[in-house]
Amino acid sequence: MKEKLKKLIDVAAGRIPADVVIKNCRIVNVFTGEISDGTIAFCEGHIAGIGDYEGQKEFDAEGRYAVPGFIDSHIHIESSYVRPEEIGRLLVPHGTSTIVADPHEIVNVCGIKGLDYMMEAAKRTALDIKYMLPSCVPAAPFEDAGAVIGAAEMEEPILREGILGLGEFMNFPGVINAADSDLEKIIIAKKAGKPIDGHVPGISGKELNAYASTGILTDHECSTVQEMKERLERGMYVLMRQGSACHNLRTLLKGLTPENSRRCLLCSDDRQPRTILHEGHLDNHLRICIDEGVDPVTAIRMATLNAAECYGLKDRGAIAPGYRADVVLLDDLKDFHVSRVWIGGELTAEEGRYLPEIEFYDTSSVKGSVVLKDFSAEKFKMHLKSNVINAIGILPGGVVTEKLAEKIELDKNGEFVRNPEVDLVKVAVVERHHGTGKAACGFLKGYGIKKGAIAVSVAHDSHNIIVVGISDEEMEFAVNSLARQEGGIVLVKEGKVIESMPLPIAGLMSEESGEWVEKKLTDIHEKAASELGISGEVEPVMTLCFMSLPVIPELKLTARGLFDVTSFSFIPVEHE
Amino acid sequence: MKEKLKKLIDVAAGRIPADVVIKNCRIVNVFTGEISDGTIAFCEGHIAGIGDYEGQKEFDAEGRYAVPGFIDSHIHIESSYVRPEEIGRLLVPHGTSTIVADPHEIVNVCGIKGLDYMMEAAKRTALDIKYMLPSCVPAAPFEDAGAVIGAAEMEEPILREGILGLGEFMNFPGVINAADSDLEKIIIAKKAGKPIDGHVPGISGKELNAYASTGILTDHECSTVQEMKERLERGMYVLMRQGSACHNLRTLLKGLTPENSRRCLLCSDDRQPRTILHEGHLDNHLRICIDEGVDPVTAIRMATLNAAECYGLKDRGAIAPGYRADVVLLDDLKDFHVSRVWIGGELTAEEGRYLPEIEFYDTSSVKGSVVLKDFSAEKFKMHLKSNVINAIGILPGGVVTEKLAEKIELDKNGEFVRNPEVDLVKVAVVERHHGTGKAACGFLKGYGIKKGAIAVSVAHDSHNIIVVGISDEEMEFAVNSLARQEGGIVLVKEGKVIESMPLPIAGLMSEESGEWVEKKLTDIHEKAASELGISGEVEPVMTLCFMSLPVIPELKLTARGLFDVTSFSFIPVEHE
Repeated sequence: MKEKLKKLIDVAAGRIPADVVIKNCRIVNVFTGEISDGTIAFCEGHIAGIGDYEGQKEFDAEGRYAVPGFIDSHIHIESSYVRPEEIGRLLVPHGTSTIVADPHEIVNVCGIKGLDYMMEAAKRTALDIKYMLPSCVPAAPFEDAGAVIGAAEMEEPILREGILGLGEFMNFPGVINAADSDLEKIIIAKKAGKPIDGHVPGISGKELNAYASTGILTDHECSTVQEMKERLERGMYVLMRQGSACHNLRTLLKGLTPENSRRCLLCSDDRQPRTILHEGHLDNHLRICIDEGVDPVTAIRMATLNAAECYGLKDRGAIAPGYRADVVLLDDLKDFHVSRVWIGGELTAEEGRYLPEIEFYDTSSVKGSVVLKDFSAEKFKMHLKSNVINAIGILPGGVVTEKLAEKIELDKNGEFVRNPEVDLVKVAVVERHHGTGKAACGFLKGYGIKKGAIAVSVAHDSHNIIVVGISDEEMEFAVNSLARQEGGIVLVKEGKVIESMPLPIAGLMSEESGEWVEKKLTDIHEKAASELGISGEVEPVMTLCFMSLPVIPELKLTARGLFDVTSFSFIPVEHE
Repeated sequence: MKEKLKKLIDVAAGRIPADVVIKNCRIVNVFTGEISDGTIAFCEGHIAGIGDYEGQKEFDAEGRYAVPGFIDSHIHIESSYVRPEEIGRLLVPHGTSTIVADPHEIVNVCGIKGLDYMMEAAKRTALDIKYMLPSCVPAAPFEDAGAVIGAAEMEEPILREGILGLGEFMNFPGVINAADSDLEKIIIAKKAGKPIDGHVPGISGKELNAYASTGILTDHECSTVQEMKERLERGMYVLMRQGSACHNLRTLLKGLTPENSRRCLLCSDDRQPRTILHEGHLDNHLRICIDEGVDPVTAIRMATLNAAECYGLKDRGAIAPGYRADVVLLDDLKDFHVSRVWIGGELTAEEGRYLPEIEFYDTSSVKGSVVLKDFSAEKFKMHLKSNVINAIGILPGGVVTEKLAEKIELDKNGEFVRNPEVDLVKVAVVERHHGTGKAACGFLKGYGIKKGAIAVSVAHDSHNIIVVGISDEEMEFAVNSLARQEGGIVLVKEGKVIESMPLPIAGLMSEESGEWVEKKLTDIHEKAASELGISGEVEPVMTLCFMSLPVIPELKLTARGLFDVTSFSFIPVEHE
């Protein structure tokens, strides 16, 4: 460390040449808001200084803008269906040098072993991936996730160097009600001196005071300027989200002021390869900021310095002596076209192309996660006592459902007889982590499926198997096919797999590229409509992925049965 | 911790009454820049929330402004000549709830034992005193301080809870030249993840890059807007100083912009009781800010949130749920008259009066610091070989001196024969820490002393005894008198002590009150002029206190002899 520091000082003082210099830059200074012409000198992965420097390698920026590497304040890598190494390849060419990732999907499946894998894989990409330790595994106490992470299980990982803090505290009712198990987790993070991410949609007033009083530092769930203001007032950083599913950025920018902007950051939350490949990443957030009239330096600060301050990343977020040599060259401050990206002093991306060779980390520890026991179509038998049932009604364009009372036809054994004229089919959740044999069935209205079946192993947050189909046999075949491919998405019709996207890493991530994921999802969407007849108004995959999440209204299905989110209790399938 | 947090949440949620509420406030929100009416609820020393709350105790603010407790980013308590408990009594009524103190004066005298005392004493005041570990003890390698604190001696104290980081790194030439011993100290702070204060007057360009590249985070030595800008650009926080001796605030405020203000803080550095009692503390800084046209909320942020961010004090700097209940009520945002101060939820000051009873910490570990050996007037014999000597020329109004060649009369033994018509006298430095018997003599021109002698034990940064007098006998009597009173300041005339301020704590601090110190210093200044004839243009005490500091130009005297700061070497008294 001393020899490195000595060399850095020697370069900064001009006594020895830099490793690399980038000449002819317009450097955006996030501390002063000024833009000045100059040469940036790198040494041992850090910035030695800005000034008149010589380097062993010299690069001519040709007058381009030099800005600090971008920091995504909150993202779930698993939601991109690719591995850490691959998310690096996808994001870095857009100027991203650091992401604050919450691996709570894989930890719900694999426990701390999933975190270990994500941390090891992160070492194989130039993107600096910092992790938050997932706080809510499982999301609710009555869930059948692959793992349970209580306060005791957090004591070791929270202290790890690559762990920035505690991940989004989704159980906000637990916090507001001061539940012991939640407070114990919060205290572990506070004792470690590490920040805690929040997740507190729709809460305000004294309940929000209660949540904020614990020191939970951020929220990325604001969807109105009023919510944003209430959180900023209470000292919470607001992470303005622009993901594949949720687009809050334009709305929230209306609430941005010169006085509050230092507490505002940019994040993705979820960002699928399709969105990254076609719209970009934080470069896209920045384009939107400019389009909404935000000053460019203020916008850049939200993607750099502000995030670094919020998460205690003292070595980045600015182009200044001693900072990490994470530098992005931009053609302008309007379209934010990224020309070059240096991370830790290495040229890492050039005109959209990621330069390093990738050697992927071994995935064997997180494969084979789909474990079924005694599974057969028998699990879908319902033995109903009434022909009026509670159906999950799909509301197109989102992940909220409604609770509907529907009349169905039953055979003599109390089993459902599907009427092809009515858009009502069976949906089932099959536990897939520990071979418990748990499974539960319900009914789905408005999905539009007319043939075959579809099954997924990505089902927030416990990631059991969700299957929908026109018959028990098609559903059985879909589940078995999904198990054979170790999870992912499968479409079956008449006893054949007609399309599939295997996600063998924890049943959540592929070993293929982002481009492959994009193509597969496009094909799945196309065949879901053309072959299975699923309604064009419904997103066939995402609709199922959120069908099990018992914290989003109104009616959901878990491996333990039908869950009424409004009453926060399990209810029978039969309507009362 | 869990029970406290649970109670805080319960109060915030409105389920149980607060400990204290302050009703009818205009609350300044440093996050949003807005001012809103409301009630602040306290619980267990923290803020539960702002809203409609009931409390077991209620206080009516009668529409006053509520702002976060002020944070002085850099102060040396010893420069106020009083103990930590007493500085608390003096500062808190001005709205100060936290100070970042560098105890490098006492550590130069007593070593880590001095730090221990300061930390224990700090527990006896409501003021929250955070310490920086002194980095440069002694200030230069050729000094005779009471202690030497190298990197090895820093390893334990840097990790202490009350130690925020590493104190001002004054040896900037060492840092810029990448000296091993300095880098080792820097690395110790970096490994501990703690900030390092800077001290880098007059340096710019690549040398400043070199200094900043180490991660040194602050500078409080800017005296021009240009210096301020250069430091801000490099990511250093600028601490705008308004002390008893140095007044940089008005100058630097000309460089403050909406874009850079978040990196600007307020500090005192040195603040004597006289200044505190007559002008105040950060309330005075804030008045100056307003007078210079700074927006009040921006000014308040520099005294609160910005300082908290800089020093990683995550629990303070704002009035928001979960923050420390450090709240100041102000009559207005122009004169900043402080009406009430709560610290950690306790009402601590009321209309200028500090409320808690003080129980002072035992001072015995840091007394008896003046240790002489074989001292007599013999030490002042000079055996000069030439009657042209290098004299230290006083430049009134500052601490910089000039090097003068002067002709003197010598007796047959080569000893100085004073000419009462010429303003040239002997000055001596006597080592007083380890009884080494070291002493050195030189000549002082322009001090104006006509009778007796004056001796001080406050002499930056090694704090040996400095004595000036018209004869060896008067000087000897002054030194012996000073030793008897265990340090401080003494004025003697014709073999009698005519005035004295004993500073028995490390020879630096009194056990008396700030008011006593003010009166004593006033009396000393008065008698220095009226009884000893010291020039009215010269500050009689401070001039001597800086006479030994071998980093301020041009000619200084240490216990090892005359030091030429320009050539950075010892020189003979005889002019060549």
